[in-house]
Amino acid sequence: MKADILIIGGGPAGIVSAVTARQKNPKKTITLVRREEKAVIPCGLPYIFKRLKSIDEDIMPDNPLKKANVNLLIDEAVRIEVKKKKVVLKKGEEIGYKKLILASGSETQLIPVQGIDYAWQIKKDYQYLSQMRRALNKAREIVIIGGGFIGVELAEELSGFKNKEISIIEILDHCLSVNFDDEFAEAAERKLKEKGVNIYTGVRVKKISQNKKIKYVVLSNGKKIRADEIVLSIGARPNVELAEKAEIRVEPKGAVKVDSYMRTSAKDVFAVGDCAQTRDFITGKKVPIMLASVACAEARIAAANLYKAKVRNPGTVGAFSTFINGLTLGAVGFTQKRAKTEGIDILIGKAEVPNHHPSKLPGTGPIIVKLIFSRKEKLLIGAELMGPESVAELTNVLSLAIQRKITASQLAFSQFATHPLLTPAPTVYPLISASLEVLGK
Amino acid sequence: MKADILIIGGGPAGIVSAVTARQKNPKKTITLVRREEKAVIPCGLPYIFKRLKSIDEDIMPDNPLKKANVNLLIDEAVRIEVKKKKVVLKKGEEIGYKKLILASGSETQLIPVQGIDYAWQIKKDYQYLSQMRRALNKAREIVIIGGGFIGVELAEELSGFKNKEISIIEILDHCLSVNFDDEFAEAAERKLKEKGVNIYTGVRVKKISQNKKIKYVVLSNGKKIRADEIVLSIGARPNVELAEKAEIRVEPKGAVKVDSYMRTSAKDVFAVGDCAQTRDFITGKKVPIMLASVACAEARIAAANLYKAKVRNPGTVGAFSTFINGLTLGAVGFTQKRAKTEGIDILIGKAEVPNHHPSKLPGTGPIIVKLIFSRKEKLLIGAELMGPESVAELTNVLSLAIQRKITASQLAFSQFATHPLLTPAPTVYPLISASLEVLGK
Repeated sequence: MKADILIIGGGPAGIVSAVTARQKNPKKTITLVRREEKAVIPCGLPYIFKRLKSIDEDIMPDNPLKKANVNLLIDEAVRIEVKKKKVVLKKGEEIGYKKLILASGSETQLIPVQGIDYAWQIKKDYQYLSQMRRALNKAREIVIIGGGFIGVELAEELSGFKNKEISIIEILDHCLSVNFDDEFAEAAERKLKEKGVNIYTGVRVKKISQNKKIKYVVLSNGKKIRADEIVLSIGARPNVELAEKAEIRVEPKGAVKVDSYMRTSAKDVFAVGDCAQTRDFITGKKVPIMLASVACAEARIAAANLYKAKVRNPGTVGAFSTFINGLTLGAVGFTQKRAKTEGIDILIGKAEVPNHHPSKLPGTGPIIVKLIFSRKEKLLIGAELMGPESVAELTNVLSLAIQRKITASQLAFSQFATHPLLTPAPTVYPLISASLEVLGK
Repeated sequence: MKADILIIGGGPAGIVSAVTARQKNPKKTITLVRREEKAVIPCGLPYIFKRLKSIDEDIMPDNPLKKANVNLLIDEAVRIEVKKKKVVLKKGEEIGYKKLILASGSETQLIPVQGIDYAWQIKKDYQYLSQMRRALNKAREIVIIGGGFIGVELAEELSGFKNKEISIIEILDHCLSVNFDDEFAEAAERKLKEKGVNIYTGVRVKKISQNKKIKYVVLSNGKKIRADEIVLSIGARPNVELAEKAEIRVEPKGAVKVDSYMRTSAKDVFAVGDCAQTRDFITGKKVPIMLASVACAEARIAAANLYKAKVRNPGTVGAFSTFINGLTLGAVGFTQKRAKTEGIDILIGKAEVPNHHPSKLPGTGPIIVKLIFSRKEKLLIGAELMGPESVAELTNVLSLAIQRKITASQLAFSQFATHPLLTPAPTVYPLISASLEVLGK
């Protein structure tokens, strides 16, 4: 078998690689090798327990691949032979390639704790998730280890069941602490507590024990939490085995090394998504961000560069949004504390305004925006937001602003559409108000 | 009396001028002269009939002026003496100024039609609106002349009453036709029709007659529509009398002439908002756009330039959003038909994607995006969107993109935050999909 363009992996990065490669190369043969018969949508995983009626509702449609005339092979790549430019599959077949895109994804990060095998992981595996769904839906007490996005979203989803007692264990001082400053993280925690979620922060898991089907999570402070089921969600680690075996360069303790065109150390081999090393837009440093949206951006860049280096990856701005019990939170770029860690001198602009105008309109609530600018050039380098659902796309205004290297002055004098029922008032539009505040400093 | 900075007009442009001037000039005396005891929020006017319980819920708070230590004078400016640098007020007082900002606003555009006096106008006047609210709330049959944003929003608001029969008369082929191409305008019309609104397009009002308190609107096609009340909302005309009397230059059939720093022809006199001439961001041509968001942007620019010309007004991109019976529509920059009128060769990228992912999540509906790029540089020059409420801030992503002169390639490789419950999937994020489509052309 042969393919002009071969893609390993059927997650968002793989699919976007294939579809974008087709747009640019109408006549090439494109093959995508995917291990899973049914590929789950990773972002949807926290919502398979209640909001979705089954895991079948969280399956990536194969239709875009068919429409793009991409051959889909359900098989597993077990070896890449970079000199012979071919990939060996588990069922025994080999596929020659002209261009290879490695999108082998990531797996749950593990921790060396006794009894950790009792915990479920966030695996992107249909059968595994089916079992996990049944188990969690039956369980009364559930402990989630890790208060990042997935952990918090899973807790929120499960807290929708009246008869469940949900607990989160987070090693840092707050949930979502990597992406938000304290005031935002605390607001998220309040929303979880309102739904009855127990939050234990600043503690480690010491061990997990089981006694007659009842599990116990023992914390570093001595506390022992009873659990019918436990879920481990402390992050992900890149799948680099295939690359390593092929002697494709992998960053120390990191992902597959790529240049700014998403090329690996092997000729005609690209890597994208969770398996590829991501760098920070602002500092250029390696960052362990694994996000479907970043994976898709990398995939589009790789697909554009297959036959000629055209589009550079500027690094990720790390744009996130989440929804917790009615509160939407968004973040992009640096937090205040991250700027401190990086030694960047900053100015902060804040705004808190009603999301409708006049504020007497039904359903009005506050939008809170915190903008972080470098002190010297007054360049926007970070933003945190919370409020109603409109905050998700408002975060994207700021994501684009950071990527286009906007200054406080440029943002303060920008024009935005406003509407009484949809946005804050034009007199106090929060991105402008927060920027104006910084201009005076 | 004297003021370092004097502002005439208490609408959004006046208030933002005052508050922004204060931020930049902590020690100056600032006075704002406003005719109205209570200033209504203009954007909220369509919603005073049902969503708001009274006009008192649509009043601009004076608190921001107090907080900014701005003297508020309730009086009417009747004459500006540009040589003596003073303004004469109706109650007889005079105020000297060092810098004057004219924010005298606009009034309803009238039409020379017999019986037009029977129609209510969209006046920003508390007493008048109180009478109008009572009359419209009593009326069963209401005819709205003009299917622009205000007309359509008013029709939608009034259609919320079960016992009312609402009709819109629009001279163009579609409602909202100035700001949207047909497919979007038609979707808006369908949403109005679902609420029982009668829409008559492509017709003029020939005359209005009254017989025993029942009014009749006679159309150019001969049709006669019965009406208990009639509202005229065909647009606004700038209030330029004060400027004209002071021999400040006014554009022919237009507004007060201003340069790109918002300076009028008179020394130390600035004009902002509806009374000031607005120019188009893309063409630089005069455009009759009167929007609170544009007024506020102009006010911030003028306030920044009072003592030194610093910030240029790049012209307006005309960013709009509206909400009609559950459908949010947004537009910014050029429509397809406007590009044709202006003789600009364009490329169009479209996307229609679910607003959640997976699409089986509750409350999922489509977002439709149409992006308009110049063919030559593939520069984004316009966008139209419709879908759920997130479309309002998604429009603002594109508003910023146009203002930052983004190309299809830059937009296609941009990063945006995505979330299952909040946005389309990262694989098909509509701004990216629509841009990628254009890249191949």
